Amino acid sequence: MNYEQGFQVRIDALHAEGRYRVFADIIRQRGAFPKAEHLRGGAHRSVTVWCSNDYLGMGQHPVVLAAMHEALDTAGAGSGGTRNISGTTHYHVELEAELADLHGKESALLFTSAYVANDAAIATLVKLLPGCVIFSDEKNHASLIAGIRHGGGQKEIWRHNNIKDLEAKLSKYPRHAPKLIVFESVYSMDGHIAPIAEVCALAKKYNALTYLDEVHGVGLYGARGAGVAERDGAMDQVDIINGTLAKGFGVMGGYIAGSRACCDAIRSYAAGFIFTTSLAPVIAAGARASIRHLKASSAERVLHQQRAITLKQRLTDAGLPVMRSQSHIVPVIVGDPVHCKAITDLLLDDYAIYVQPINYPTVARGSERIRLTPSPVHTDAQMDYLVDTLSHLWSRCPMSQAMAIAAQ
Amino acid sequence: MNYEQGFQVRIDALHAEGRYRVFADIIRQRGAFPKAEHLRGGAHRSVTVWCSNDYLGMGQHPVVLAAMHEALDTAGAGSGGTRNISGTTHYHVELEAELADLHGKESALLFTSAYVANDAAIATLVKLLPGCVIFSDEKNHASLIAGIRHGGGQKEIWRHNNIKDLEAKLSKYPRHAPKLIVFESVYSMDGHIAPIAEVCALAKKYNALTYLDEVHGVGLYGARGAGVAERDGAMDQVDIINGTLAKGFGVMGGYIAGSRACCDAIRSYAAGFIFTTSLAPVIAAGARASIRHLKASSAERVLHQQRAITLKQRLTDAGLPVMRSQSHIVPVIVGDPVHCKAITDLLLDDYAIYVQPINYPTVARGSERIRLTPSPVHTDAQMDYLVDTLSHLWSRCPMSQAMAIAAQ
Ligand SMILES: Cc1ncc(COP(=O)(O)O)c(C=O)c1O
Ligand SMILES: Cc1ncc(COP(=O)(O)O)c(C=O)c1O
Repeated sequence: MNYEQGFQVRIDALHAEGRYRVFADIIRQRGAFPKAEHLRGGAHRSVTVWCSNDYLGMGQHPVVLAAMHEALDTAGAGSGGTRNISGTTHYHVELEAELADLHGKESALLFTSAYVANDAAIATLVKLLPGCVIFSDEKNHASLIAGIRHGGGQKEIWRHNNIKDLEAKLSKYPRHAPKLIVFESVYSMDGHIAPIAEVCALAKKYNALTYLDEVHGVGLYGARGAGVAERDGAMDQVDIINGTLAKGFGVMGGYIAGSRACCDAIRSYAAGFIFTTSLAPVIAAGARASIRHLKASSAERVLHQQRAITLKQRLTDAGLPVMRSQSHIVPVIVGDPVHCKAITDLLLDDYAIYVQPINYPTVARGSERIRLTPSPVHTDAQMDYLVDTLSHLWSRCPMSQAMAIAAQ
Repeated sequence: MNYEQGFQVRIDALHAEGRYRVFADIIRQRGAFPKAEHLRGGAHRSVTVWCSNDYLGMGQHPVVLAAMHEALDTAGAGSGGTRNISGTTHYHVELEAELADLHGKESALLFTSAYVANDAAIATLVKLLPGCVIFSDEKNHASLIAGIRHGGGQKEIWRHNNIKDLEAKLSKYPRHAPKLIVFESVYSMDGHIAPIAEVCALAKKYNALTYLDEVHGVGLYGARGAGVAERDGAMDQVDIINGTLAKGFGVMGGYIAGSRACCDAIRSYAAGFIFTTSLAPVIAAGARASIRHLKASSAERVLHQQRAITLKQRLTDAGLPVMRSQSHIVPVIVGDPVHCKAITDLLLDDYAIYVQPINYPTVARGSERIRLTPSPVHTDAQMDYLVDTLSHLWSRCPMSQAMAIAAQ
């Protein structure tokens, strides 16, 4: 075995498919989001970021930054330990209480990310509930799939957002068998929204637990920013809610919220929770400030939705192949990885617009896309320029036009 | 199925075994480490932390904190995206370059923690190298075991730090079969140190890759703080080095360092790397400042080792059951989970000394212990008080005395 060659072969395969990923090197400019400095070959250039998941711009909010500066001054940099071994600080305790309150649950449990939360919590749930069958939406995120795989239990994949198919699958199992329905509120690459109340009604009928990933919902939907389940009045019907502190809330970290016994059992048995250093206090402090702000203020949420509606309408009016989306996510279909990368390279190099090509495995092959994330901090002028530029590029490119027609 | 009951049964089992974990709620006092505020029932009390893995106190170092404040002011709170989708900032790029340089490797790759680095990197290596057999030291950390399990390949468990057993296992496989030897430099619960050079010599003989977890070595050993492999002159023999930014470096996050092709392949294929928000810039900035400082300064390392030697000697002189350890870790055996928790509760409540009981599953049943982590920021007076207090407690307790005799 020649290991270096072994690795190189796998990298070459990505180049051959046109989906080798090159990361753009940027520095976001605090106070001037969505502006960022783009660094390449020693040169700096100002660009406008149109693909950030800091959906509301909370990453530059003064209350968030003040809380972080203060935590650094008070408690220093890292936590210095796992949650059990000196790594539970009062910042963690307060943040968990804040999250439990946000979702109207008895408890919440922090993880280093929502990826880890999904992976660790779901795998552990399967182990805690012997014989548990998982019912997983076919479009579920990689982190949910990781948790399901790592739990090692039986699984049923139901068709995306399809209640009929979910019921057909649930009804195959006896009532007493433990069951866990795993789904997302906002599917972040398409912008679809799940029928949460209907899923929960089925869960009750068949005695299943529900596990809802609200990663692209928290901060953004609901009267206090608890997510789509809050907006839909279904939050109390969901057993376990998963969220991130890194997108709507603008910081970093992830969590679950649920019953006291459920969170305590996961806390006590999940290796991915137990055997890792806890979030830095500075991160916990910033996340808490962000949540508290967004619990009380809906202005950011209202503006966010307005910007998304406006952008979708303007791109549609310009004849661009925007995918239909009920949410804040604005995907524009390209349908080919090489083409997708070429467009985004051109946007960055010639127009100072930063969006990233979304290729397989993030989305299915053939549905490669540009995914735009308008936010309250994007100005009208920035949106005008984006729409004009995309129209101009699409009008020059026969393949894009074909895609636009196909997307109708 | 009654789910709440199902969870409660699992929690009750922990109570029955005496190993239900209660997290102490603290705030470390920046500028006064190892001092912390302990919060309970509304009351605050100053305690001395003797169980932090911020081994050198870098979490309160002015250069680290200055870099973090500056990054907050420049770039805001979170990164706003996965590494591929707007989450690669210049802080990440610079930190990866710093880490590659630290370990003398072509590349390095950041993860949200060393747990995630181990889990994602090892599982991905197994998938990149079809048929790869893993050779895993029996005392390997939970995160290494997670990666090995999640890779799903064949595995051989070799006896702890036993070169003969490793060779016996390696020699069973043909030379051309891909092989990965997974081990740690410092086993953090016992303080054992691996025979790194000998393992690497075997790897060469049998054409295996080596994966070394230096989580409890980085920052602490070697002329520039690259770990035990650097100290032993074996760093260039190790193929992939894993480390944390959360212990010796005092911040948060994890990484691997290795060849360009190896890191690039893991970067391109590891779900746990791809599908999660990148580290917050503030964290990356702090970690880089810490690494740069410890590359140039050995004062902290020298003092750290002196403190550990002194503490081990003093506890031994006092007749306490200190485990023999070649490293900075000072475990004192208790041997029973209930007793271990009782001692640490007493230390916290009556003596304002904070150590956490180390029980199963962190260590094997019957080897429950107190694990002390002396650091350059612990004063002589604090050490005197610790040793006197432990001696006093042990002298009052017949069971502890029996353990002390058994540990001889
Ligand atoms: C040997 C070992 N590897 C990996 C880890 C994980 O490191 P991190 O805290 O960065 O996740 C730990 C402890 O936390 C450890 O002890
Ligand atoms: C649906 C979904 N779940 C979970 C995650 C992981 O969240 P985090 O970035 O906090 O790891 C993501 C994206 O990152 C996601 O899109």
